[in-house]
Amino acid sequence: MIRDLWLVGIGTGSHAHITLEGQQALRDAAVILLPRKGEGKDDLAALRRRILDDAGASARVLPFDMPVRDDSLPYQDRVSRWHDEIALRWSAAIAEAQIDGPVALLVWGDPGLYDSTLRIAERLSPQPVLRVVPGVTALQALTSAHAIPFNTVNGPVTVTTGRQLRDNGWPDNAETLVVMLDGECSFQQLDPEGLHIWWGAFLGMDEQVLESGPLSEAGPRIVDTRATARAAHGWIMDTYLLRRM
Amino acid sequence: MIRDLWLVGIGTGSHAHITLEGQQALRDAAVILLPRKGEGKDDLAALRRRILDDAGASARVLPFDMPVRDDSLPYQDRVSRWHDEIALRWSAAIAEAQIDGPVALLVWGDPGLYDSTLRIAERLSPQPVLRVVPGVTALQALTSAHAIPFNTVNGPVTVTTGRQLRDNGWPDNAETLVVMLDGECSFQQLDPEGLHIWWGAFLGMDEQVLESGPLSEAGPRIVDTRATARAAHGWIMDTYLLRRM
Repeated sequence: MIRDLWLVGIGTGSHAHITLEGQQALRDAAVILLPRKGEGKDDLAALRRRILDDAGASARVLPFDMPVRDDSLPYQDRVSRWHDEIALRWSAAIAEAQIDGPVALLVWGDPGLYDSTLRIAERLSPQPVLRVVPGVTALQALTSAHAIPFNTVNGPVTVTTGRQLRDNGWPDNAETLVVMLDGECSFQQLDPEGLHIWWGAFLGMDEQVLESGPLSEAGPRIVDTRATARAAHGWIMDTYLLRRM
Repeated sequence: MIRDLWLVGIGTGSHAHITLEGQQALRDAAVILLPRKGEGKDDLAALRRRILDDAGASARVLPFDMPVRDDSLPYQDRVSRWHDEIALRWSAAIAEAQIDGPVALLVWGDPGLYDSTLRIAERLSPQPVLRVVPGVTALQALTSAHAIPFNTVNGPVTVTTGRQLRDNGWPDNAETLVVMLDGECSFQQLDPEGLHIWWGAFLGMDEQVLESGPLSEAGPRIVDTRATARAAHGWIMDTYLLRRM
């Protein structure tokens, strides 16, 4: 039974994004649940190990196998079932190991931002006491890398997804848009007139790539750079900020 | 002359929000510029000292006096002149101390998010090489404290200010709104029907206060709690998330 579940934000790709609070949580946990993903993202696995080493975490590391999504189901059902199954695997791993103490999970970025760990945790029964340790997000990693402000003076910012941008276009009255989870360079569907883009991939990592400029010029460059970096690396994580100038 | 200027995000109020990257920057800096604010926020000054001590920063700490804003000027001019003046004071302090090495500034939260340090830095002449170290923001401190997600599944979030909310109301089509820099509990101007609020003050600090619930019920409670906490403390920093449920 998981009585205490700690979701620890570890930042976006640099081992040095972890906070002192995050390190302390990793030291205080009884066990750290780690997915055995087999995604070929060996660099991320190495980064996670480095973070645990830096923290001096002596907790037992308990790997669990991620379930496979059932692609025959409609999208919502598929995700929902998948989350159910992950929650069951956490519980089974903890029950089998007979752990009685705080269970920690490492979450890239921040556990609140476009991440499903909180939603999986809600499925646990009985409900554990949840603790969330905030982390540096891709939003801050992006604006820091470009040394730009997130917002204009007193201006609003909309944080959204590639899918939202494709389905609904540029939100009415928006001035600044930050787009996450966009595997399709959806900025290509916008009228570039008056828009400036700041883009980054592998933020925080040694492989970090940045591009920026008027969308009309930088957009096509980003599409190329992204394709090349993805091919070289085997995977890519990127995000971007668009501002009407 | 400031050749290298480092803006280091230090999180929202916990000494443990600093990242390893932030600590390293504070150790590597030749000097740390600190405002001598005289605001009576002694707890924040103590927190800043703790952060420097934790990091083992041996850099020279160079205090500078913050200029006074000229309240006779219109708002935009007042802020603009004030930023000009701050940039001059940074340059003067560094010139007088004859420092030749990276200059670091500690920035609450993240240097990109509703903070003027980047805009002040732009005024320096010649332009220094800017480095921004991302930090945990009030957005993440708020959602972590409440253990809630920032966004709904695939949903957008608008980050905005109290002034924007008062002037323009609830943005069309917005589902989640995070409001910063609101000294007036501007949520009171909204029709509370269907809105849920998660509010927090002194996020990350021992004095942290949280409230949440349907806006119709929690709103008046927050107004009271905020007034009491502010009176007890002498100042307050708070932020909140509103979601249409």
